[in-house]
Amino acid sequence: MSALKNIKVLDLTRVLSGPFCTAMLADMGAEVIKVEHPLGGDGAREPSAAVNGESLYFMSLNRGKKGITLNLKEARGLEILKSLIKKSDVIVENFRPGVMAKLGLSYPEVKEINPGIIYASISGFGQDSPMKHLPAFDLVAQAMGGIMSVNGQKGAPPTRVGVSLGDTSTAMYTAFAIVTALLNREKTGQGQSIDVSMVDSIFSLLEMSLFSYLGDDKKVLDRMGSRHPTSYPYDVFEARDGYFTIATFDNTGFSRLCEAMGRSELMEDERFLTDTIRGKNDTALKEIIHTWSKKLTVDQVLEILEQARVPSSPIYNIQQIAESEHIKARQMLVDVEHPVAGPTRLPAMPVKFSQTKASIQGPSPLLGEHTKEVLKNELGFDDEFISTLAENKII
Amino acid sequence: MSALKNIKVLDLTRVLSGPFCTAMLADMGAEVIKVEHPLGGDGAREPSAAVNGESLYFMSLNRGKKGITLNLKEARGLEILKSLIKKSDVIVENFRPGVMAKLGLSYPEVKEINPGIIYASISGFGQDSPMKHLPAFDLVAQAMGGIMSVNGQKGAPPTRVGVSLGDTSTAMYTAFAIVTALLNREKTGQGQSIDVSMVDSIFSLLEMSLFSYLGDDKKVLDRMGSRHPTSYPYDVFEARDGYFTIATFDNTGFSRLCEAMGRSELMEDERFLTDTIRGKNDTALKEIIHTWSKKLTVDQVLEILEQARVPSSPIYNIQQIAESEHIKARQMLVDVEHPVAGPTRLPAMPVKFSQTKASIQGPSPLLGEHTKEVLKNELGFDDEFISTLAENKII
Repeated sequence: MSALKNIKVLDLTRVLSGPFCTAMLADMGAEVIKVEHPLGGDGAREPSAAVNGESLYFMSLNRGKKGITLNLKEARGLEILKSLIKKSDVIVENFRPGVMAKLGLSYPEVKEINPGIIYASISGFGQDSPMKHLPAFDLVAQAMGGIMSVNGQKGAPPTRVGVSLGDTSTAMYTAFAIVTALLNREKTGQGQSIDVSMVDSIFSLLEMSLFSYLGDDKKVLDRMGSRHPTSYPYDVFEARDGYFTIATFDNTGFSRLCEAMGRSELMEDERFLTDTIRGKNDTALKEIIHTWSKKLTVDQVLEILEQARVPSSPIYNIQQIAESEHIKARQMLVDVEHPVAGPTRLPAMPVKFSQTKASIQGPSPLLGEHTKEVLKNELGFDDEFISTLAENKII
Repeated sequence: MSALKNIKVLDLTRVLSGPFCTAMLADMGAEVIKVEHPLGGDGAREPSAAVNGESLYFMSLNRGKKGITLNLKEARGLEILKSLIKKSDVIVENFRPGVMAKLGLSYPEVKEINPGIIYASISGFGQDSPMKHLPAFDLVAQAMGGIMSVNGQKGAPPTRVGVSLGDTSTAMYTAFAIVTALLNREKTGQGQSIDVSMVDSIFSLLEMSLFSYLGDDKKVLDRMGSRHPTSYPYDVFEARDGYFTIATFDNTGFSRLCEAMGRSELMEDERFLTDTIRGKNDTALKEIIHTWSKKLTVDQVLEILEQARVPSSPIYNIQQIAESEHIKARQMLVDVEHPVAGPTRLPAMPVKFSQTKASIQGPSPLLGEHTKEVLKNELGFDDEFISTLAENKII
């Protein structure tokens, strides 16, 4: 049984933020109809990483959705979209603010067509920000949201988080908001609009860095590599053949570490007496740890630290985590059969429900794969009319 | 009107992942009852950043919740918890896997008490991973989830994302899952359990880095600073007095940039003919841009680039984004009156609903602030009995 069975989502989104959000809904069983321009469709179809020439980016973010083409610059295309809106529970868009209004598809207009609809908008800065005209790229959202100022090594330039967190965090908030609005509609019958911005989403994740500034000290934190703002040793360290982490917060962990290194005298060293004092003498302590760890391999270090019960871990690259026992046991990579790419591994949604299991409902659609089916089943169009639409490049 | 009105959430979580999740539910109007140990409570009460000695971390992550104390190691404490479970819709916990079962509070046991309950567990690796014994610190989840291998400057060590994304991404997924399960329960009457892990959540955010590995080329991406995997110039650059971004993907943006720099001849340069070719000659192009930009201030650079319509942005530090016109307009910082700290600014949830507005329902609770109220109203205990419980250190 699917949690979102019978929920129809009209998906006008492209690339990352919107598709990531509607993929979460599709995995929970919603019927997501992705609307693309007949010429080329979603830019994410352009393959950077590919299986058999098919874009993995697109296949992953659009798994389990139906795909139709519609030219929204043509009056008849717009009319068809409006007819589909009448039959939908949710509409999601990630155009620049103002584009939907230009199409005659602002929330008040869509609400006229379907009063109960849930209308979700994703954008760089939100629908009403004084900065809403600025470009909504992930790099810009991360740069202006503050996160880059605290990401990266000490002394290095501000660094973009190595994944498009501006997009994906916004997607997660929007999925949460849509389901919340559906629950509310179930109880009250009311629809509503939802407005989520990438900069706000990034800002909401700042936690300690923001609290430090909002606190009495008004401290503006800078980049500090991998270390904890106050505690030590909670950081990345080097072994002979790579890196590993130690994550201790207290004297118990630290004394175990000292013994594991054969350096119990450090527990008496006044530079290392408490967590906070160690935090201030991080450079000295890191050097001491390196004197020990650089003679050993990562595997040797981790074996010693595990035996000594010092919280520590390897640092996996993408292949190591993807092929790990953990990812296998959690079924976080799923084989999906795609008509062109063939069997393709895609990442699953990281939520394990006991009843309404999340699961990938099928491959991503080919461009326009379901246009006929949707126009017939949802709107009752016949073959001849559909052919005319195709000839006129409406679909 | 609140979307989650009348939803009762029993919150056994501490520090970050769980509290971040239940704060989202509280902002949507759920009644969240946070259960803490009578001695000291949630470790996050220990102030690192503080207002009037009160931990901002705790105040922010536990705003709008009720707080009760209960000693779960005492039989009577456990009995009281079970009585509260009977009256709850949702229970959320972030103990190490196995702890709830030791307390006699595994999902099957809790389901006996309340068949309709939604039981959400947050952990480092999940309830059934072969690695579930490993420490569930954010640093470890980021290290093993793969994200650190692609975060940071080229040649630098793998770098922890400068915020606790292992915790907060898991929180967002869990909040999504809980509301989805509530919607399902509304339709079917069924409760269920939810299991979300920090490593899985980080893994789900890898997108391009993971797709590159899953694709035909099996490319294991490394750290590449702020730049885009293929396109250029999409990166961080230096001006005389700081950093800024340029975010172009195409020849239109690039030719505008060349003209803005007074270097239109670069458009004919064979090293820079297309986006992908530029991506391969990033070092040369960065140097050319720096020759121009390092003579100017960030403000001057951005004024020129804005006029030339080249996508670009400043890079805000925490103070700059917190005090920006954008954050003001979006009401992303909200004044909350706290009985000890006084008026305190807290970050709001980044979703703007037209109907069921998210809003901070009140300050975080003092330790045990609502114990009496909850035991009286929910369980009908009288003053005398409550005093006995306090004397016996059950509450």
